[in-house]
Amino acid sequence: MYGLIGKMRATRGQRDAVMDILRASTGALPGCLSYVIARDPADADAIWVTEVWTDAASHKASLQLPEVQAAIAEARQMIAGMEFRIETHPVGGFGLSPAKTD
Amino acid sequence: MYGLIGKMRATRGQRDAVMDILRASTGALPGCLSYVIARDPADADAIWVTEVWTDAASHKASLQLPEVQAAIAEARQMIAGMEFRIETHPVGGFGLSPAKTD
Repeated sequence: MYGLIGKMRATRGQRDAVMDILRASTGALPGCLSYVIARDPADADAIWVTEVWTDAASHKASLQLPEVQAAIAEARQMIAGMEFRIETHPVGGFGLSPAKTD
Repeated sequence: MYGLIGKMRATRGQRDAVMDILRASTGALPGCLSYVIARDPADADAIWVTEVWTDAASHKASLQLPEVQAAIAEARQMIAGMEFRIETHPVGGFGLSPAKTD
């Protein structure tokens, strides 16, 4: 599996708007096993996104989907930048598709 | 919802053993919506754990469960320390229990 942990900074006061766009665009994308959008309670403009995909290719392919492209275009002007981004190799746990935890 | 993102360091060479213990102890714990265990591909002894719970109380209560206490006792000697730990407030996404994403 392929994972991403990222911290995104919204422009001042736009965090909820960005999160709404992210939530609306994250349905059952091909290869997506988990996609969690969270507020940082200690940082008013910060959003944490944690993702699990079957592999890196499925994540990369998702970025070309029309609904994801539209979300990126809509949110871009309200995103000040990425402050943290790390790739991981998830091995399992709870809350992922049982068929794809290895 | 209540979330945690943490980076744990295993003692040298013990990462897989720690991850096996974590995986074995993370079934459907009360209030747990997601618990993902991942290798850090760029750091040989590092483990990333990302968690989503219905609330902070359910996470705290889980630490007292016999199976979790046993896992902590077993893994402790193979854990060098925590290097990163942040609390989040997840608002939704994909891969969480649909009834509990708000």
